[in-house]
Amino acid sequence: MLSIDHERLKRVRQVMEREQLDALVCRLPEHVRFLSGHWPLVGWTWLWFPRVGRPVCIVPHCDAHEAEQELWEATCDAFRFGVLTAGNPYEEIARRLQSALRGRRPRRVGYEGDFEAVAPPWNAAEPAIPAAATRRLLREVFGARALVDATPLLNELRARKTPHEQQRMRIASEIAAFGLETFRRKVDVGVSGVELVAHVERAVLLQGTGYRGARRVRAFAQVATGRQETAAGYRPMEISSLRKLRPRDLALLELGVVADGFWSDRTRVRVAGQPTSRHRDVFDAVVKAQEAAIAAVRPGAAAGAVDRAARAVMRARGYGKEFLHVTGHGLGLRYHEPVPLLAPGVTTVLEKGMVHSVEPGAYAPQWGGMRVEDDILVTATGAEVLGPARKELATP
Amino acid sequence: MLSIDHERLKRVRQVMEREQLDALVCRLPEHVRFLSGHWPLVGWTWLWFPRVGRPVCIVPHCDAHEAEQELWEATCDAFRFGVLTAGNPYEEIARRLQSALRGRRPRRVGYEGDFEAVAPPWNAAEPAIPAAATRRLLREVFGARALVDATPLLNELRARKTPHEQQRMRIASEIAAFGLETFRRKVDVGVSGVELVAHVERAVLLQGTGYRGARRVRAFAQVATGRQETAAGYRPMEISSLRKLRPRDLALLELGVVADGFWSDRTRVRVAGQPTSRHRDVFDAVVKAQEAAIAAVRPGAAAGAVDRAARAVMRARGYGKEFLHVTGHGLGLRYHEPVPLLAPGVTTVLEKGMVHSVEPGAYAPQWGGMRVEDDILVTATGAEVLGPARKELATP
Repeated sequence: MLSIDHERLKRVRQVMEREQLDALVCRLPEHVRFLSGHWPLVGWTWLWFPRVGRPVCIVPHCDAHEAEQELWEATCDAFRFGVLTAGNPYEEIARRLQSALRGRRPRRVGYEGDFEAVAPPWNAAEPAIPAAATRRLLREVFGARALVDATPLLNELRARKTPHEQQRMRIASEIAAFGLETFRRKVDVGVSGVELVAHVERAVLLQGTGYRGARRVRAFAQVATGRQETAAGYRPMEISSLRKLRPRDLALLELGVVADGFWSDRTRVRVAGQPTSRHRDVFDAVVKAQEAAIAAVRPGAAAGAVDRAARAVMRARGYGKEFLHVTGHGLGLRYHEPVPLLAPGVTTVLEKGMVHSVEPGAYAPQWGGMRVEDDILVTATGAEVLGPARKELATP
Repeated sequence: MLSIDHERLKRVRQVMEREQLDALVCRLPEHVRFLSGHWPLVGWTWLWFPRVGRPVCIVPHCDAHEAEQELWEATCDAFRFGVLTAGNPYEEIARRLQSALRGRRPRRVGYEGDFEAVAPPWNAAEPAIPAAATRRLLREVFGARALVDATPLLNELRARKTPHEQQRMRIASEIAAFGLETFRRKVDVGVSGVELVAHVERAVLLQGTGYRGARRVRAFAQVATGRQETAAGYRPMEISSLRKLRPRDLALLELGVVADGFWSDRTRVRVAGQPTSRHRDVFDAVVKAQEAAIAAVRPGAAAGAVDRAARAVMRARGYGKEFLHVTGHGLGLRYHEPVPLLAPGVTTVLEKGMVHSVEPGAYAPQWGGMRVEDDILVTATGAEVLGPARKELATP
């Protein structure tokens, strides 16, 4: 975290020059982390990021200690927040933005106009987001005509990870593997989905905090159990319940892990006791489909071609119709990012430095639902699977 | 959850009539829960809530099963989401809103224009929020002139809890008490803040899920340990670290718990081993200040008077300057709500049905930081402390 990601800063400034942006002004925790190195604890941090000159990170004083440790090049300008002597935060922020301008009036300032889904700050219980009060402040400080929605630009930049960011993603996926391993060991007859969630989240928190320098680590686990719950496992989340696993029941873990602002998104399926032959067949098909997709990943490949590779295996094995969702999606500063999307017909070309999930699955009311998901980095020559990726339906 | 909160629906429609609003259209999970009974799992649910007629809950099909179980009176209109056959969600939602209108064109429609901090959906890893794409959709369906920012109206309604909502808050605080009790038992020499977080969150998840019918329960715990970390405990969160408790170290737990969409916010402090006489004195002052504040709570009392009662005790005990923050804040569908704010000079009059925290504290670099926080319901005659509220600095 303490090493500066110079390549990120260079790439951002190149794109700002291309778009003729004098500055970016960001409030979402994911973009503060992206452009400054600091991952906000609460959601009231702002970043003033000029194309030329030193950025200013405007932080509530409760986050100032961590900001000063984490910031790459930005000046930390703290305002009192959440204590009796605090003023109106919008006035405090506006004053600090004015002071960062030093009398100059930028002609074009990019803001986060259209992020409809966001990553939470470290304290996920209460995300702070830009709404009308923020738009008012931006108009007052910069004038309505100077404001440019920087959403497309930020998404473009986020999709191509620098080596620094790739390393952060690697660490997040390695930490997630602690959760996957705990899940592997804990699935058993008599255990409930909610208990498995508790085991997995605890393992990630305790083994992940401090792992390779990771400071703030969090898991968001969901576990479906049994035929009915796992058959609905194609949904973006599983519902964890108190239902206890019975012999031959499936357990499906969907695991989001964040480590210092970077995300991992992984899935495993496991059987309590011995699987049926149908279980074995579906699991083998899903694993083979994932392998085929990963083998198709390389710079220059179309995202749709990777999806096709996974889908071909599933179809050949007789589970084409049961593979209900896309093969993968981008991720990084969020659990899910829009680029690249690995789905039928998508022509987006994979580039070195992109990170995406590969997650084939099959779901049927007769036997339940299965999915295996790992995160893949597109390298110069192919694909790197991030973190250990043991896949095992049952103890052999 | 299955019983309809008729009083909530009546109060909302009365305020809508007063404000001449034909309908509300909501997307934040907290307002979907507020007006429909359904707490979204992912954040892509919309609620069409007309003043006259039946509401329509537009849900991603991954949430449809829970929506159908939980909705009070709204029709559930599901759209495919997150699967290959899904369309553009905005087009799907716009079409369903148009269909809910049945050719009529409402003159005034309230939307969530200015919620800058929000509660996450059940899956806290990725909140979905209204941004430019949502504003575009609203303008297209209703016309720019019909749109009214309903933020003040929704905050006004949320501050006064119905009996149904009071019961939900009671359950959330009772579940939080499982976490407080685990913290009480687990604080010991050699244990780290991160380990205490894991213990507390696990207890809330396992003991809370299913408790008095609670279905979806989550804890967000933070634990500061030792003099330096707890002295910074006046900040809106504690930083949990790997530092192990030493004899006479303080541990300060800040605990947010959500149960089916309603929040609890509680804090406890504890000593590893035996406290110093200073510890005992500060703790006693904080507990007495909390008692004095709670004794001052009644309908008709000014919020500032409750703050004054707590502050008078702290000042008399010599810790006036160390009590750095407000005495309390509202809560309900969010961890923190704006009404009532219990701070010096606030003239807001407490009303029956309001719920707020009472959380005096004292922080100093010489001996650390302490705070005790519980949630209070304003009753017809005084105050009800929600949930068991054992307070104990050390084992006697």
